Amino acid sequence: MPISADANPALTIGPHALADLLGRWPTSDGALYRLLAARIGRLADTGELPAGVRLPPERTLAAALSVSRNTVALAYQVLRDEGMAASRQGSGTRLVPHRTTPAAVHRANGFFAGLLSAAPPFDLSVAAVDCAPPVAAALVDPATVLDEAERTRLTLGTGYLPYGLPELRRAVAAMLTAGHGVPTNPAQVLITTGAQQALDLLLRCEVAPGHPVVTENPTYPGFIDALHRSGARPVGVPPGDMARLADAVTVHRPALAYLMPTHQNPTGLVLPAAERHEIVALAARHHDVTFVDDMTVAELPLAPGADAGPPPPPLAALAPRLPNVVTVGSLSKTYWGGLRTGWVRAPEGIISRLAAAKSAADLGTAPVQQGLVAALVRDQHEAVIAYRASWARERYAAMAAALATFVPGWTWTAPAGGLTIWARRPGDADSGGFAQAALRRGVAVVPGRLLSVSADRSPWVRLAFTLPPDDLVTAVKTLATV
Amino acid sequence: MPISADANPALTIGPHALADLLGRWPTSDGALYRLLAARIGRLADTGELPAGVRLPPERTLAAALSVSRNTVALAYQVLRDEGMAASRQGSGTRLVPHRTTPAAVHRANGFFAGLLSAAPPFDLSVAAVDCAPPVAAALVDPATVLDEAERTRLTLGTGYLPYGLPELRRAVAAMLTAGHGVPTNPAQVLITTGAQQALDLLLRCEVAPGHPVVTENPTYPGFIDALHRSGARPVGVPPGDMARLADAVTVHRPALAYLMPTHQNPTGLVLPAAERHEIVALAARHHDVTFVDDMTVAELPLAPGADAGPPPPPLAALAPRLPNVVTVGSLSKTYWGGLRTGWVRAPEGIISRLAAAKSAADLGTAPVQQGLVAALVRDQHEAVIAYRASWARERYAAMAAALATFVPGWTWTAPAGGLTIWARRPGDADSGGFAQAALRRGVAVVPGRLLSVSADRSPWVRLAFTLPPDDLVTAVKTLATV
Repeated sequence: MPISADANPALTIGPHALADLLGRWPTSDGALYRLLAARIGRLADTGELPAGVRLPPERTLAAALSVSRNTVALAYQVLRDEGMAASRQGSGTRLVPHRTTPAAVHRANGFFAGLLSAAPPFDLSVAAVDCAPPVAAALVDPATVLDEAERTRLTLGTGYLPYGLPELRRAVAAMLTAGHGVPTNPAQVLITTGAQQALDLLLRCEVAPGHPVVTENPTYPGFIDALHRSGARPVGVPPGDMARLADAVTVHRPALAYLMPTHQNPTGLVLPAAERHEIVALAARHHDVTFVDDMTVAELPLAPGADAGPPPPPLAALAPRLPNVVTVGSLSKTYWGGLRTGWVRAPEGIISRLAAAKSAADLGTAPVQQGLVAALVRDQHEAVIAYRASWARERYAAMAAALATFVPGWTWTAPAGGLTIWARRPGDADSGGFAQAALRRGVAVVPGRLLSVSADRSPWVRLAFTLPPDDLVTAVKTLATV
Repeated sequence: MPISADANPALTIGPHALADLLGRWPTSDGALYRLLAARIGRLADTGELPAGVRLPPERTLAAALSVSRNTVALAYQVLRDEGMAASRQGSGTRLVPHRTTPAAVHRANGFFAGLLSAAPPFDLSVAAVDCAPPVAAALVDPATVLDEAERTRLTLGTGYLPYGLPELRRAVAAMLTAGHGVPTNPAQVLITTGAQQALDLLLRCEVAPGHPVVTENPTYPGFIDALHRSGARPVGVPPGDMARLADAVTVHRPALAYLMPTHQNPTGLVLPAAERHEIVALAARHHDVTFVDDMTVAELPLAPGADAGPPPPPLAALAPRLPNVVTVGSLSKTYWGGLRTGWVRAPEGIISRLAAAKSAADLGTAPVQQGLVAALVRDQHEAVIAYRASWARERYAAMAAALATFVPGWTWTAPAGGLTIWARRPGDADSGGFAQAALRRGVAVVPGRLLSVSADRSPWVRLAFTLPPDDLVTAVKTLATV
């Protein structure tokens, strides 16, 4: 099972895949070629680059990274000097086997590299919000939401609650029932460590390796990472294209279809009510396909007050009893990502299966904070949502104006909601080189290719507008100089 | 991909596997046959029993469950009446396809059913401790461990920390260095949601489906569940048998070997220092095998004070720089399971890979509680360990005395530490029927078969001594009546 040069002489990595894996390599101090060599060496240490892999030719990697060919040539020389690589006439430069663990087989994903590396000065790559004031108050001083007897009660018992704390399951069920028209009883709710865990558990339970999974394309990169790790076979459809979606479901008979009807990530689109009815009809005809409605950014409309009606109802509101419609959500984009609180709403059978999988994954999320969060969801949900809406609108306005002023050649459709702008640079060049060059100037963006399940070349970039407004303007000004 | 009766006419489930899946079915009120039918129906709803599966013959299921044949016959009749099952001459009773989701393929595991069902009056199946007083104080009133400025600081930033909160990584590194002789820098530490997540991530990163994995047998059932879900091929060796371990590693070349050298779960054995040196030598010869030392119950010695020397050092203390020795631990058995705080200590390369996998699994554990836990580990670790040691000794003494008094025919070796007794009932009968019968009297124990990676028949049972001493005595008295 270890990968060795002899066992797999055809093992290669393309320049764009390597650029994605490299992530934010040029953000430290030092000569570029040394930084590049150090980063490649580290990827070899971690097994992300398997021993024996052939590195891209100097010229193509230089183009993908927007650096000179000499920088790559010198980096490869450092790797050879350190015994990490070997070059042979006619077969290029290969990493030398030095520690051969069987590594997880997964696609290079520069998105998560963002969380795993030091953040650059202006990070437009992660849509992370601050901790809303009532949430911070509850975390700093729990007495603001629960009295001492209530807090003490949370520390009793075994602490193992794979389904989640009953109070939080009830609070989420009530919020879905009253706030979104999705009639939900608490037994239909599983509490997860963010929507990310909800998606990972769904993939682990509902999809076997090799099964097709339909997803909007482009989509949330965290789903793409979990999808690739699951071994599923992705089938992408453009967001909002009902004919392609119906075809994909009918032809591929996927195990799961992943959709974000409200404020799609990254495009910010809202699927109209008529299309939602079409999807529910499709689900009713295909009981063996699990349709996932990801509401993570659904409560973040950008049009202020009277301008916007409420968004159309979630899929589960149109078909609350269909056995194959699952709703996923999170408090990460409204309350705070550091709560790590997400949920799944599904028929009880699916919830039982997911809870069993969660037991094997982590035996349940810590209950005490769930008690605080339950009180917040029950008593202060509207206040948090209102706080976040004006927070997001102010930032969106700043970035939209900056884009129009400083990069007028870029094209984008105003998002109806969410925390990202999906923008296209002029021309057809893949945005990966641009993202690399921007990073060296201190601004991180997500190149469109990383939001594509098939890693297609893309001239698009995703820009999160979650920094303070002044920083957003500075960042866009910097992008204009790249 | 959906399993249907036509697609897989050979799909069957054995009586013992079904008994494990059924878990705690007889604990509710009502006629036994109705409870049995309802539980089987629910397993069909959840996909744990796939549509089309052939149920065991009435006679063999009755024996496995310690109920009359008539109870099973009536339960099957209820299932047929409700359209859930069909019987045909010569092919037995099958579940009728009614909702065919592709279900996760995993082994029936009655251990986790315990966490997922209502607990019986006397639960000896889960080794769960109470929340240690200083830990409860910190959770109820965080001001006991961190001042307001420190607490506020924990709510800043994105909240996404896949490696864990730096303060907690430092605290765990310092505890390992000073307390266990394992020199550790914080970059070698990943914080996880309990040891369960540490094991799951290791399996997801280091092991591909079909790879052999060596484990002590019997072992921790949470590892068995994650192992079966990973699709790995288990190879069991008796705890402490060095010759068999060396053979298994040499012959099978496993991706991973899972060991619990200190207070092995369930036996409570301590591996002597000489054997630990042998394992390290084995690891040095087999760099492609990841050796996991699970320290989850290592800080729970049962011999009081002067009677016991310190246990021999962890494997990583003997070989702190070997690239393939990984240490896993948890605060669940000393502080409280509800903290859901575990850790991995490994070379940085493995830590990077695990952190990337954790990003895809849940984007990181919630940071605020990690700040409280870091303060506890830094300042009150010795106090918590001392509290728990006397807590555990009092309970062990009560159960040991009760076993000697009320079931003198049972044989067991006094554990050196941990929270469980591994006891053998007289005779050779599998303990599954006994466990079912005990459950109907309100006492849950884990039948030995569920701690075996090959689900071997076993006359052993695992008894956790974590209830209050009086309850332990009552529970053992009840076992004597079964």
